[in-house]
Amino acid sequence: MHTTAIFSFDSLKNLAFQVFIKMGCPSAQATLAAEALVAADLRGIDSHGVARLSGYVRLWEAERINPTPNIRIVHETPSTATVDGDAGLGLVVAPKAMEIAIAKAKIAGTGWVAVRNSNHFGIAGYHALMAVKNDMIGIAMTNASPLVAPTFAVERMLGTNPIAVAIPAQEQPPFVADFATTTAANGKLEILQRKNEDAPLGWIQDKKGESSINANELKQGGALLPLGSDREHGSHKGYCLGSIVDIFSAVFSGANYGPWVPPFVSFLPLSPDPVGLGLGHFFGAMRIDAFRPADEFKINMDKWISRFRETKPAEGYDKVLIPGDIEREMEAERLENGIPVIEAVVTDLRNLIKKMGLDPTIL
Amino acid sequence: MHTTAIFSFDSLKNLAFQVFIKMGCPSAQATLAAEALVAADLRGIDSHGVARLSGYVRLWEAERINPTPNIRIVHETPSTATVDGDAGLGLVVAPKAMEIAIAKAKIAGTGWVAVRNSNHFGIAGYHALMAVKNDMIGIAMTNASPLVAPTFAVERMLGTNPIAVAIPAQEQPPFVADFATTTAANGKLEILQRKNEDAPLGWIQDKKGESSINANELKQGGALLPLGSDREHGSHKGYCLGSIVDIFSAVFSGANYGPWVPPFVSFLPLSPDPVGLGLGHFFGAMRIDAFRPADEFKINMDKWISRFRETKPAEGYDKVLIPGDIEREMEAERLENGIPVIEAVVTDLRNLIKKMGLDPTIL
Repeated sequence: MHTTAIFSFDSLKNLAFQVFIKMGCPSAQATLAAEALVAADLRGIDSHGVARLSGYVRLWEAERINPTPNIRIVHETPSTATVDGDAGLGLVVAPKAMEIAIAKAKIAGTGWVAVRNSNHFGIAGYHALMAVKNDMIGIAMTNASPLVAPTFAVERMLGTNPIAVAIPAQEQPPFVADFATTTAANGKLEILQRKNEDAPLGWIQDKKGESSINANELKQGGALLPLGSDREHGSHKGYCLGSIVDIFSAVFSGANYGPWVPPFVSFLPLSPDPVGLGLGHFFGAMRIDAFRPADEFKINMDKWISRFRETKPAEGYDKVLIPGDIEREMEAERLENGIPVIEAVVTDLRNLIKKMGLDPTIL
Repeated sequence: MHTTAIFSFDSLKNLAFQVFIKMGCPSAQATLAAEALVAADLRGIDSHGVARLSGYVRLWEAERINPTPNIRIVHETPSTATVDGDAGLGLVVAPKAMEIAIAKAKIAGTGWVAVRNSNHFGIAGYHALMAVKNDMIGIAMTNASPLVAPTFAVERMLGTNPIAVAIPAQEQPPFVADFATTTAANGKLEILQRKNEDAPLGWIQDKKGESSINANELKQGGALLPLGSDREHGSHKGYCLGSIVDIFSAVFSGANYGPWVPPFVSFLPLSPDPVGLGLGHFFGAMRIDAFRPADEFKINMDKWISRFRETKPAEGYDKVLIPGDIEREMEAERLENGIPVIEAVVTDLRNLIKKMGLDPTIL
């Protein structure tokens, strides 16, 4: 097993904030970005939190991230806007875009924002949850580096293209779905790679398109599989979902799509013939009282959640989960007891502190 | 193999029209319903077309379908509406609701319509495609009779809850995704039952929650599995998707949700303690020029489609498909050469003609 060190949410957030300040971000934007990034660690999606901080810095060093972006609306209607992120951190661009969606929804009932010229935005669920505080359903999605082969294909054409949907209730905590449109998220493969373990059949294929259990298959020309794994088990549906996320995020906005999406890792070159600007996101906010009185909606949502929680479990299982349960329980636990960070990431962060000339005592 | 008879699109549509007229539908609504129903046969989704006509009649006989509904908006904002279908045929209510979504989008950029007090609406893709002719993206979804167990559960809590998304292009035909949020649609199981064949592992589970290959498992307390099949292959994501469709369709609108959704078959009783009215749908229409100039969108959509069409196929496969390809090719083929209908369905239709007192020569 890995050695881990425990850090408080505030100390990791402060570290991220200091790093973003060193990159030249204005203080308010560094705060926004640090909060969004470390929300991943808090909610247990360790692959998307401080483990990626040095990756963001490398993108900034490669001049693919603009620390002082002019994030602006370039096209709009009463219920929609297209936003240019000016190559800013997705962690900053996304909350700004979600704010615009929420403001549109206040007036038009719903608000929908497509974003171009952005970068990776952390976890989709964080942005979707912004709407819930406003008695709205929040939707967030993004395209990402091409790692996924469509059904019947060997080429990597789509990212893991996650979708998040957050829905408010009254007494019950919100329903929060947040998932990659692949069978397994790339973060899960990375965990297996570190442990030197095999992957289950159905997660990845080799470069010929044969299903593989080699967790390192992506380094040898393989690909992640769309949700459903193979045609017989509905991989064409996962391919549809990933495609819809790609089109909403990038064809609506004017970002790069499909195989043209810029890679997260700075050592891979950008496409020589881009079809748009940066990568793309798509956000939605729907006022619950745009459809029926808010308390009616919430009472029924409580009933939906409590009925599903009472679903008879299969033998060997304690209970049926509501989307968001695991992450919410993790968040409460980690706020209380701190966030475990594996040694490799701690080392990476200490090197980053040194490289950025920060006070070594901050972590 | 089955004996099949071939009928023209027009003759099946006329049959459906005559049956809906006999049920008491006004002529314009009978036309709308017949067109929507037989679109399923045309597009190759035989389980949802004339094979279900006698099922709709039985629901009408059980007084669960109102042939002369007063379909009306009960709540609205600039970009949203909630529609009460007045227990009408979903095949009529759905196109009316989609028209409202399109009208809202013309003014507000997007339009979103939640529907309560409706019935089964045929294939989701038909309704989503209505938006495409207006240079809009169309979205359609519905909840349905509970047949699906959430991850870790044995109880049937969700329907196959399909989602359709139709996206216009310029030279290329539209992208049309239309899929159940389960690993396999119920129609595929029905085909196996008729052929007395086993199902692949991962489609269904038995009443204890064990994966099963028995295509008749649903009759013995089993359940369909969410897209992903099992936890290791992402069934929690399929469970999320089915839940989102249920909540958007019914908690927004005031319809029945989850295990309370009225069954399609008239011999099963309605829930004694309904949580809403009828079943629910959700529709969206998004003007493509609400995000960027329409021709820019379409040129990029053409590029998206043609690039994905050129994806290198895996060994043993000719080509990679774009969502909608199969149904569009089927539609062209069947418009030209007619629609094959299996003998069991032909017999069912002839009995229906007799029962409704229609001229036997119409089929």
